[in-house]
Amino acid sequence: MKLWQKESSKNLGKQEAAFRIEKFTVGQDREMDMYLAEFDVIGSMAHAIMLESIGLLETNELGHVLNECRKIYNDILNGKFLIEKNIEDVHSQVEWLLTQALGDTGKKIHSGRSRNDQVLVDLKLFMRHQLRQIVNLIEALFHKLVELSNKHKNDLLPGYTHLQIAMPSSFGLWFGAYAESLVDDAVVLQAAYKVVNKNPLGSGAGYGSSFPLNRTLTTKLLGFDDLNYNVVYAQMTRGKSEYVVLSGLTSLATTLSRMSMDICLYNSQNFGFVTLPDDFTTGSSIMPHKKNPDVAELLRAKTNRLKGLPTELAFVTSNLPSGYHRDMQILKEILMPAFDQMIECLDIAHFMMSNIEIKPNLLEDKKYDPIFSVERVNELVMQGLPFRDAYLQVKDEIFGGGYEAPRDLNHTLEGSIGNLCNDEITKMMNDVIKGFDFVKVDTALEELLNWK
Amino acid sequence: MKLWQKESSKNLGKQEAAFRIEKFTVGQDREMDMYLAEFDVIGSMAHAIMLESIGLLETNELGHVLNECRKIYNDILNGKFLIEKNIEDVHSQVEWLLTQALGDTGKKIHSGRSRNDQVLVDLKLFMRHQLRQIVNLIEALFHKLVELSNKHKNDLLPGYTHLQIAMPSSFGLWFGAYAESLVDDAVVLQAAYKVVNKNPLGSGAGYGSSFPLNRTLTTKLLGFDDLNYNVVYAQMTRGKSEYVVLSGLTSLATTLSRMSMDICLYNSQNFGFVTLPDDFTTGSSIMPHKKNPDVAELLRAKTNRLKGLPTELAFVTSNLPSGYHRDMQILKEILMPAFDQMIECLDIAHFMMSNIEIKPNLLEDKKYDPIFSVERVNELVMQGLPFRDAYLQVKDEIFGGGYEAPRDLNHTLEGSIGNLCNDEITKMMNDVIKGFDFVKVDTALEELLNWK
Amino acid sequence: MKLWQKESSKNLGKQEAAFRIEKFTVGQDREMDMYLAEFDVIGSMAHAIMLESIGLLETNELGHVLNECRKIYNDILNGKFLIEKNIEDVHSQVEWLLTQALGDTGKKIHSGRSRNDQVLVDLKLFMRHQLRQIVNLIEALFHKLVELSNKHKNDLLPGYTHLQIAMPSSFGLWFGAYAESLVDDAVVLQAAYKVVNKNPLGSGAGYGSSFPLNRTLTTKLLGFDDLNYNVVYAQMTRGKSEYVVLSGLTSLATTLSRMSMDICLYNSQNFGFVTLPDDFTTGSSIMPHKKNPDVAELLRAKTNRLKGLPTELAFVTSNLPSGYHRDMQILKEILMPAFDQMIECLDIAHFMMSNIEIKPNLLEDKKYDPIFSVERVNELVMQGLPFRDAYLQVKDEIFGGGYEAPRDLNHTLEGSIGNLCNDEITKMMNDVIKGFDFVKVDTALEELLNWK
Amino acid sequence: MKLWQKESSKNLGKQEAAFRIEKFTVGQDREMDMYLAEFDVIGSMAHAIMLESIGLLETNELGHVLNECRKIYNDILNGKFLIEKNIEDVHSQVEWLLTQALGDTGKKIHSGRSRNDQVLVDLKLFMRHQLRQIVNLIEALFHKLVELSNKHKNDLLPGYTHLQIAMPSSFGLWFGAYAESLVDDAVVLQAAYKVVNKNPLGSGAGYGSSFPLNRTLTTKLLGFDDLNYNVVYAQMTRGKSEYVVLSGLTSLATTLSRMSMDICLYNSQNFGFVTLPDDFTTGSSIMPHKKNPDVAELLRAKTNRLKGLPTELAFVTSNLPSGYHRDMQILKEILMPAFDQMIECLDIAHFMMSNIEIKPNLLEDKKYDPIFSVERVNELVMQGLPFRDAYLQVKDEIFGGGYEAPRDLNHTLEGSIGNLCNDEITKMMNDVIKGFDFVKVDTALEELLNWK
Repeated sequence: MKLWQKESSKNLGKQEAAFRIEKFTVGQDREMDMYLAEFDVIGSMAHAIMLESIGLLETNELGHVLNECRKIYNDILNGKFLIEKNIEDVHSQVEWLLTQALGDTGKKIHSGRSRNDQVLVDLKLFMRHQLRQIVNLIEALFHKLVELSNKHKNDLLPGYTHLQIAMPSSFGLWFGAYAESLVDDAVVLQAAYKVVNKNPLGSGAGYGSSFPLNRTLTTKLLGFDDLNYNVVYAQMTRGKSEYVVLSGLTSLATTLSRMSMDICLYNSQNFGFVTLPDDFTTGSSIMPHKKNPDVAELLRAKTNRLKGLPTELAFVTSNLPSGYHRDMQILKEILMPAFDQMIECLDIAHFMMSNIEIKPNLLEDKKYDPIFSVERVNELVMQGLPFRDAYLQVKDEIFGGGYEAPRDLNHTLEGSIGNLCNDEITKMMNDVIKGFDFVKVDTALEELLNWK
Repeated sequence: MKLWQKESSKNLGKQEAAFRIEKFTVGQDREMDMYLAEFDVIGSMAHAIMLESIGLLETNELGHVLNECRKIYNDILNGKFLIEKNIEDVHSQVEWLLTQALGDTGKKIHSGRSRNDQVLVDLKLFMRHQLRQIVNLIEALFHKLVELSNKHKNDLLPGYTHLQIAMPSSFGLWFGAYAESLVDDAVVLQAAYKVVNKNPLGSGAGYGSSFPLNRTLTTKLLGFDDLNYNVVYAQMTRGKSEYVVLSGLTSLATTLSRMSMDICLYNSQNFGFVTLPDDFTTGSSIMPHKKNPDVAELLRAKTNRLKGLPTELAFVTSNLPSGYHRDMQILKEILMPAFDQMIECLDIAHFMMSNIEIKPNLLEDKKYDPIFSVERVNELVMQGLPFRDAYLQVKDEIFGGGYEAPRDLNHTLEGSIGNLCNDEITKMMNDVIKGFDFVKVDTALEELLNWK
Repeated sequence: MKLWQKESSKNLGKQEAAFRIEKFTVGQDREMDMYLAEFDVIGSMAHAIMLESIGLLETNELGHVLNECRKIYNDILNGKFLIEKNIEDVHSQVEWLLTQALGDTGKKIHSGRSRNDQVLVDLKLFMRHQLRQIVNLIEALFHKLVELSNKHKNDLLPGYTHLQIAMPSSFGLWFGAYAESLVDDAVVLQAAYKVVNKNPLGSGAGYGSSFPLNRTLTTKLLGFDDLNYNVVYAQMTRGKSEYVVLSGLTSLATTLSRMSMDICLYNSQNFGFVTLPDDFTTGSSIMPHKKNPDVAELLRAKTNRLKGLPTELAFVTSNLPSGYHRDMQILKEILMPAFDQMIECLDIAHFMMSNIEIKPNLLEDKKYDPIFSVERVNELVMQGLPFRDAYLQVKDEIFGGGYEAPRDLNHTLEGSIGNLCNDEITKMMNDVIKGFDFVKVDTALEELLNWK
Repeated sequence: MKLWQKESSKNLGKQEAAFRIEKFTVGQDREMDMYLAEFDVIGSMAHAIMLESIGLLETNELGHVLNECRKIYNDILNGKFLIEKNIEDVHSQVEWLLTQALGDTGKKIHSGRSRNDQVLVDLKLFMRHQLRQIVNLIEALFHKLVELSNKHKNDLLPGYTHLQIAMPSSFGLWFGAYAESLVDDAVVLQAAYKVVNKNPLGSGAGYGSSFPLNRTLTTKLLGFDDLNYNVVYAQMTRGKSEYVVLSGLTSLATTLSRMSMDICLYNSQNFGFVTLPDDFTTGSSIMPHKKNPDVAELLRAKTNRLKGLPTELAFVTSNLPSGYHRDMQILKEILMPAFDQMIECLDIAHFMMSNIEIKPNLLEDKKYDPIFSVERVNELVMQGLPFRDAYLQVKDEIFGGGYEAPRDLNHTLEGSIGNLCNDEITKMMNDVIKGFDFVKVDTALEELLNWK
């Protein structure tokens, strides 16, 4: 029975109303907050160290807080942490655990901190961490694709434009193209990483605090590149960071969905360019001959779906004036599953590409003969014919008769069939990865977790 | 550890690979399919009756099948049904229960049916049912808003254009406006209902069947308005129906999000037009004076988020050639939670509006005096001045001095402060509701569930 | 040089600043308003007749106004109307022409009307008119597709699921599927038509007027179904109407884009199912053998692009509180070209489908043999084998050897290869068209234009 | 009359059909190509130099080609270039001009180049150029905002959360927040710039060429950072580059739309925080007292609209298999006006912010007293009360009586009212700008244009 029905019959007790409203307001927040748990603890440790440095926490209190935090942190990593039923969110749960263990000392770490900057710093640490997972998976997939490109550099493939057979291509080119696409995707994600990798802690509810907090110190402790200085802007990064991150993921999603589309098409009997092992296909409940490329289709579908998320998120935040609004809370439900989906998709894509089989000698089929027409034109041009005349002569040969496909390819330009430049592409990828400077974060967090 | 890492170390057993791929392909399908359970049974009953009518099931077999289906149906309604761990989807679960109970007879109802038309008919019955729930909630909210409009017809409110004070409005007009908005939203949803309320059963995998199925019979049994005749088109409605439904919901979402935005603004101290009871507000962890309108904000956020779903869905289906693709499966994960969200939002909106309090006598505040400028202009026009001259004279009075706000309003035109036309609006709503013809569906399903 | 650069050098005169700001605020408004000209005149005629009926215009004045309006209306239809350089928009231009011709009488028709309800009524009349053009084109394309379906009912085609060959289909089914899709698209557009076909005139700036206007009269004169009663709601339909209309168009766009995708694929040498005449294809500047299906590709692209417009529009209007905002103005730039695009696409689609050539006897190619596997299974079922056993036996035959494709199809169920049900589908379309009730509008407008 | 109507009456001559189809296929291509003209010439110069270097053009021919190119380039800059009626696009126009002037030599520069890589390189040079214009405008607006922030650092403003008064803020913080937001927007645009700043020339139609082109040379000549090596990937960047660029612009658009929303709200009589000069406002045709903030509203609307463009574009390209499709052509119609819009918006935003007036002494109004509640809590904490107790005491004071707002603010933390850190923020912006390395491009292009 709906709330309003109860209400109209005047029977809805205060308690039930409160329960229904809480259900509406809490939503999936507890599930989403579990993603933030480890980062909430890390943020709290940095905050505590800073509080001690400005005299708002005693040195021995700091020791107790850090020890307790480390225990909670390990529980989280070991899957022993949960948000209890009667507790609203992860921040309250961590605070409650600290207070249980340490009494008033536990309460003190709320000084100079608001829920708003606390969740902001958690989210930024979380996004930074997830982006790194994704970049690692991109890198691994990249190397697999380069390996396949090198392996199949002599396996020719019809190249299409307008879905019409066009010119000779190769599996070397095809695998390599998706590898290089990942380089640009990593560039885009690096911008998101940089936007995210700044410290909002200390901005309070978006208007700072009269406590003399040292934001530069927490920035260093948490391995951030810099601060979100302006406290009003720090609060504005809620929603904006998530948007930039999700937008960044769409470029990668586009690479994976296009690759899947190619595979679904090339796996059709009408193309027959690639085969997927049985593990990756399913049969039909009514058609005994079917081997459907379900994994590739779902990879396409899941990555395409991700492309809608920036819009979904932006509808929530559009035209909200500056300052925090509760609307921001549901962005977590859009952001967090997106990372899970993308990570799963990258993993499956890698596994699928490792197992794909290609059909050799495709271009020996006579139907692909016209694909060599440009070669024939160029032959004639090399023999001295103007391009336009050569073009018309070959057109006559093809449609009138007498055309012989010159199958001897000799492409040497950078990035072409005969000169894939996979080393240059790999160098580009390595340079991009270096730009993330993951080591800096590792060093900072290791120091923080072992702070004495 | 990721699949591809295992793969590269050659240690990933066949079994684990299969497990990972299954996880990827099944996704959230089991959870989503629980929404379809009751409709799968209903569709199976209609199919069984039809099979018997064309001699593909014995009459006594039909009796057993129907009895068993009724048992499963009641289990579903009573929350006793579940999809077992090792079973892929709801269709297999129902089939397995029938086969457990009836042996080969249970298997027979798969004759002349494909997974594709089975899930299609389930989805259409489900969407039809959910749209009806939503229309019921719209109707209830509509009547509440009309009631509030009538109650507050004499409570004036500043009317704004460009967020600048403009002309006198009233709470009567304001509540009534959202009521009338719901009428058009219901019109839009009715089109979605009509698109959905057609029978795809019998279209098989999108190419029909050589069995002499009687699709007209199942159409009648399931209370559908008509058939999706062309079997290729029937399959094409997968994705298209969901899209039309989600697009239909966005219009309603826009009404609710705008209403919430108004409430958040009117509840700000700078407006101070409405108050929400404490149950609907929350405090701040650092600011003791705060009463934040979280419920209205989350209503705004959740309805705004729904506006992104048609895009998310359309990215999955765009540019797929005709014929089923596995991509369609993940549309369930977009569609089903959308209904839940909308139903929850409508319920909370109703509850919130039932408890909102309005501030009386707002226009007595001197700062709203200019709002009566058009009244003053019209006074002068009625006294014989040309409009443009009257306009300039009042402008002089306001900016130069001497302006007296004529607070005596006398608006009589249809739909204005003094003549809200709530009866006419209610008649429009009633006419729209009638157009859904829910009774026809009730009659058909009651007959089907009690078929002898 | 940019505005701000001038500003910083203190040299930007008042006049230039005003010019730049005007350019920004006027934008493409003049071009867009040309679409509204005829509707602005019609709306003005109805308003004038109503003003006379309540004594705000003399009877002889009305005669002059109507005559002048008819002259302007004819000029518009004959392409002789334009919005002059120094005039801001179409409403001012029409008013200026009336005042030029009639002096003070021309000014009077602004009584009881605001720019806001004037542009609203123009937009609704315009959208109503454009939707009708689109429905006419849908109907024509529908009949062409039904004709092709009937003509090619015996021309078989491989049916695909998962882009894998699946079961026998036919060009009769394929053409007919897109015909039936148009029926549902028309249902969706009818809802948009109904939402649009209500009268906002008299709602003023969204808060009515103290004039005793007769809105029921203008509703009848303009052939609207009903009023937007509540004046606050009437204003709220700005943005909402455009959104509902654009959303309605996306369903139609999806039908056309999928059809184009099929054609591009079927026209590829790897399928080879259809051929487009040379007029519809282009060559390549470097590949002499190419015949690219550019028309089908651009039809796909243009209709796909239309699917993004509801999102574009909703970003502008999201989270704006109730009441007019200038933001609404730029919605015209999204709405009006959308109609043009859709009309052009429907016209070209019709022309292309009229000229497409299909390849006969496709299924005689051995590679499509497995497509008949379900037929073979059903044969065995009819001979008494349980379905699952028959299925396994045919699977063995296909992968093990011994499979013979049973090419004799005998599909009789409603909507299948042998029983296309095009008459039933045509009846559905006719019923939908009837529901628009275009005659009512024609009658009203004819009477209005000839009002004495 | 529509094409299909003509067709059905068998009267449509070949010529008219061709004309209609051309109209459909050319679309707005000529207008859009005008944006590319200067870049087409630059790309042609680089290609010609490279052709000479590999012996496909004589040295003296190169001299003539470069001279002729320089003439055309100057004509373009001086507005004397146009695409003639009978010429399809900018590439043909430039080629035609060269051939007119140089005969066969002019034709030769088509060697080793396809329309596909030609338009790709034009687009990348164009996007690189436009991004730079935008970054320049961002930088200028940034400095204006920093200047305003410094100027108004002591002008307090109520800070809001949930649209409820919350804590003291200042115009210094508010202006500074939008300045810092532009820093992150520039980071995002830099990624787009890097993706765009790679050379696709030499990739032909996506499958390279048998000519021994030197792609490294054209990369250097055109000032690109690197190559799009893999030729299949180079073609894949069509659509992808535009998408990354438009996505990049949405972040900036969000900053500007939020700023405009704040201004519209702050300009409302209910807030009254800012005033816009009369030039920036408009009156109402019926309400003599109105001064509407139309410029701010249209800035909000236009930037919000831009947020829909990545979706519009992605609908066109989604699920297209690899290889060129004609669909790509219409992306120009989305991309090019987007730059114009953004440039106009940045210019107007700058001009508006230069002229905005702020209201001083806002917090002296008693209604904002509760805004100092956190200060009061912190006072008590500093006096030794635990935070929770202090919080409860202040709550009692506010709702029970006795609360005195402590107006003496002393915020010193980084980025707060008393310590805006505008220098640090300016340093961040300068670092980002440096990362674009515009000088490198200038040097390369100057050398190219003066090549002997």
